[in-house]
Amino acid sequence: MATPSALARVSVVLSRPSHPGNVGAAARAMKTMGFADLRLVAPQRELGPEARALASGALDVLEGARTYPGLEEALADAGLAVGFSARTRDLSHPALALREAAGAILAAARSQRVALVFGNETFGLTNEELGRCQMLCVIPANPRYSSLNLAAAVQVACYELATAQASHPVPAGPAHEAATVEEVEALFEHWQAAMVESGFLDPKRPKRLMERLRRLMGRARPERSEVKFLRGMLAAFQEKKKR
Amino acid sequence: MATPSALARVSVVLSRPSHPGNVGAAARAMKTMGFADLRLVAPQRELGPEARALASGALDVLEGARTYPGLEEALADAGLAVGFSARTRDLSHPALALREAAGAILAAARSQRVALVFGNETFGLTNEELGRCQMLCVIPANPRYSSLNLAAAVQVACYELATAQASHPVPAGPAHEAATVEEVEALFEHWQAAMVESGFLDPKRPKRLMERLRRLMGRARPERSEVKFLRGMLAAFQEKKKR
Repeated sequence: MATPSALARVSVVLSRPSHPGNVGAAARAMKTMGFADLRLVAPQRELGPEARALASGALDVLEGARTYPGLEEALADAGLAVGFSARTRDLSHPALALREAAGAILAAARSQRVALVFGNETFGLTNEELGRCQMLCVIPANPRYSSLNLAAAVQVACYELATAQASHPVPAGPAHEAATVEEVEALFEHWQAAMVESGFLDPKRPKRLMERLRRLMGRARPERSEVKFLRGMLAAFQEKKKR
Repeated sequence: MATPSALARVSVVLSRPSHPGNVGAAARAMKTMGFADLRLVAPQRELGPEARALASGALDVLEGARTYPGLEEALADAGLAVGFSARTRDLSHPALALREAAGAILAAARSQRVALVFGNETFGLTNEELGRCQMLCVIPANPRYSSLNLAAAVQVACYELATAQASHPVPAGPAHEAATVEEVEALFEHWQAAMVESGFLDPKRPKRLMERLRRLMGRARPERSEVKFLRGMLAAFQEKKKR
């Protein structure tokens, strides 16, 4: 697990974004994955209420965004610039799939600033912009429609990096205590006895009923409390039968 | 690599979505990753021009979406329903992180319909809705701000599944031919000779210049055509010196 500061050394650079809403949505995408440094190169429209609405709880990221006249200035302090493209064709640079690139990106971010560079919504990155990047990264996509929304591409890239460095809490396993093998075996014995008593299971022609029950419960992997509940239920069925 | 039809057996179910724009953006997110079956449970507003604008090139997915009065009806033909939540806390169900769940989801989709179920933008999935799911899946996120936009969550889930089953073309390695060790060694000899002739490298006090050059070029991993170009350049420098 890398230190949180590695994510702090990763910037998202949006070059010539057309739609303020996308800038806001990109800020939100970044913050949900723990990124904060947003840089805008020559945004084509002022950020207004639409950008703020789509930033939602990531207004701090949006308002902290810096604007640069050109990509060169935005990348001035970066040791590695990674250009993103959804296209696998027409690439002059050799490209890595996002998952393949994640390790190298995080390794670089341990010691230097890394910029993830996204192009304009319609045109993507120009060859000149790609020329300022040292790595080209592709998000593998449907060849018949590979056009991810700008903020969606930022979301996927940030998700992949955060997951690759295991930055965020992953849910703990089952919240409740799993039953032990011994407890589950006792349940099967109880279940079998109850089925025999009820007449449903004929010990002379068992029809693999216990095998099927084992398979079903094996998939369910019952918790201790569920074993208790089932045995209580079986006992109640047995009582009823005896009455 | 699973068959493409496994993705065709995965549906995205949006329960009570508030914003038509999010439904359109979710349709786009799905299509970029090769998914097509969109289901809406009691959408709170009519899908209008905003939904269509945000669907962009995925109008077919949006227009093919079916609407259901309740989640039960939307899940009727599904063998596995996976509820999505951004929260790791307050969960009554045991939950898996998305990457952990991907394998089980794809395995199920080889033989049955699988529904990825997303709740309302503001409230997420209710406990009743979660109760209709057999698996709960969490997208690990920033604990201080874990609120992914609805379409962004759909994008990440679809990306993870498509990547886990390697559905989409991944860029090929470097497009050009890498130079062989022999060619690179010849380049170093040439380079050294040129630096000695120029007086820049003093063979009696080499200052580890060649070592530094080797490290630099090792990182660059030159292509065959680049080795040629560099040797041409060195030859030109040597000529100039001799003149």
